[in-house]
Amino acid sequence: MVSGLVAADGRVVRHGTRRVHGNDGPDAVLEVVVRSARECLADGPRRPAAIGIAVAAQVDPRSGTVVHAPNLGWRDVPLARQLADELGGPVTVVNDARAATAAEWRFGAGVGVDDLFYLSLGTGVGGSAVVGGRLLEGGSHALGEVGHLTVVAGGRRCHCPNVGCLEAYVGGWAIAERAREAAASDPPGGSGLSDLAGDRASITAETVFAGYRAGDRLATEIVRETVRILADGAVGIVNAFNPSLLAVGGGLVAGMPEFVPAIASAVGSRCQPPAAGVRVVPSSLGPSAPMVGAADVARRAPRLR
Amino acid sequence: MVSGLVAADGRVVRHGTRRVHGNDGPDAVLEVVVRSARECLADGPRRPAAIGIAVAAQVDPRSGTVVHAPNLGWRDVPLARQLADELGGPVTVVNDARAATAAEWRFGAGVGVDDLFYLSLGTGVGGSAVVGGRLLEGGSHALGEVGHLTVVAGGRRCHCPNVGCLEAYVGGWAIAERAREAAASDPPGGSGLSDLAGDRASITAETVFAGYRAGDRLATEIVRETVRILADGAVGIVNAFNPSLLAVGGGLVAGMPEFVPAIASAVGSRCQPPAAGVRVVPSSLGPSAPMVGAADVARRAPRLR
Repeated sequence: MVSGLVAADGRVVRHGTRRVHGNDGPDAVLEVVVRSARECLADGPRRPAAIGIAVAAQVDPRSGTVVHAPNLGWRDVPLARQLADELGGPVTVVNDARAATAAEWRFGAGVGVDDLFYLSLGTGVGGSAVVGGRLLEGGSHALGEVGHLTVVAGGRRCHCPNVGCLEAYVGGWAIAERAREAAASDPPGGSGLSDLAGDRASITAETVFAGYRAGDRLATEIVRETVRILADGAVGIVNAFNPSLLAVGGGLVAGMPEFVPAIASAVGSRCQPPAAGVRVVPSSLGPSAPMVGAADVARRAPRLR
Repeated sequence: MVSGLVAADGRVVRHGTRRVHGNDGPDAVLEVVVRSARECLADGPRRPAAIGIAVAAQVDPRSGTVVHAPNLGWRDVPLARQLADELGGPVTVVNDARAATAAEWRFGAGVGVDDLFYLSLGTGVGGSAVVGGRLLEGGSHALGEVGHLTVVAGGRRCHCPNVGCLEAYVGGWAIAERAREAAASDPPGGSGLSDLAGDRASITAETVFAGYRAGDRLATEIVRETVRILADGAVGIVNAFNPSLLAVGGGLVAGMPEFVPAIASAVGSRCQPPAAGVRVVPSSLGPSAPMVGAADVARRAPRLR
């Protein structure tokens, strides 16, 4: 996790990084978060203007409760209240994709744009939308979960209850899974992917990208199929959400920046005419975007005084 | 086209239906619209409080210009201004899917709901979203065009520049096209679809639905595949837009009401947990929804006085 002291203009004044282990449970994770936040405040204002925290979870923004965080195994954790008790200030809890979107919108690639879609390509695939100058929530605070658009009817099983999801092909876990399967059925000596990773079971998306850069045939096939499905998904996203700007971020884009122009080309040639005018750009804030966005959402949150 | 005098509570006080031919051009169509509107006003108020018109087109709601209406072949028609000149009042032009959504939200299946998605299944497949109590527009007034979500990567060619679109399988034109193809490759005497339609070239979606009711094997296969792809699309729509209510309307639902429970079942079992709680219902206003919605949007439109 990263924590930071963020100025009103989005600059990160001070920050720290700590390891947390999701399966340690909420109390242990909270302890690390609190310690890290206190360090960031040590030389700063005695009391920050606002405290925001981004978490990869379904969040109820009114109560600040983490409703469900699959990767952490949390359900109904009253995170805002617990952190407020420890840190002594009002705390705003924000879904990580929504926080990153807020950051790109206020300080990054989307400044001045009223209709923005932020597509996050990482281990999972997510997203979030600003429409008409408002960051959207959805009926149960999950609007923008485009990783679970069906793009290959009857296709690969996803980690969610659906099959053929965008994430089931282009999420980091899915790229790795597809590569391991392909390596398993490849004749010996046919691809260096297993060697690159040490052994077949250790192949990750990063191994695939490294193999692609080295000209490995299997890695190249997998990257090409990933680009095809990513294009199919992005065309649908742009048709459905009709943003003026599509910002693409996340760990996979850092490893494979070529994904962004590939998306731009597909969207420009295959979307419906009204939607095809969208600009496609890489996100500009990188891994600190969720933290910066959570701080900004917290600063703007209405307060009960 | 239908025109009507609509009360503030959505009741249609008086209405009339006229034939228009899109390829007659804007002037001829406008003449019919104006004549029909004047008839509706004959016994009513001398001047209506507001005038709204729904049109299957990309519309700029600020200027009331029809930017692009593919089915009518119109581009940049200043419809609001022309109608205002004829009818003597401020005119609001609304995209038809957005108008139907407004009607369902204000007077129909979506009363009291803040997060509503309206899915329209007709010759084309469209949609529109209310999120957080606001009817969304999108960067170029085309948000909600879920007919052009890619659901079958590398699949059938659509009328739009994409392939594998939801509409390319479940739109009325696509159901008909798939049925004609299937009938062509079916052995003689294998299916009564061509007989039902008169000849193979005359098969429509309605022929398929009639064949399905009569137990025709080919029609049953086509309806089942349609349900499968529709479910794939609906799961994606609900995951991405996270509505509390999904209202399903359009001509195909009138002919095949079974589509609605099929969508409900897929969405409930295959969506992500936060999104799966959505209620799925048929739209309740039927074919008058776009007219009623356009009147309501017009009534609420801010006016320059």
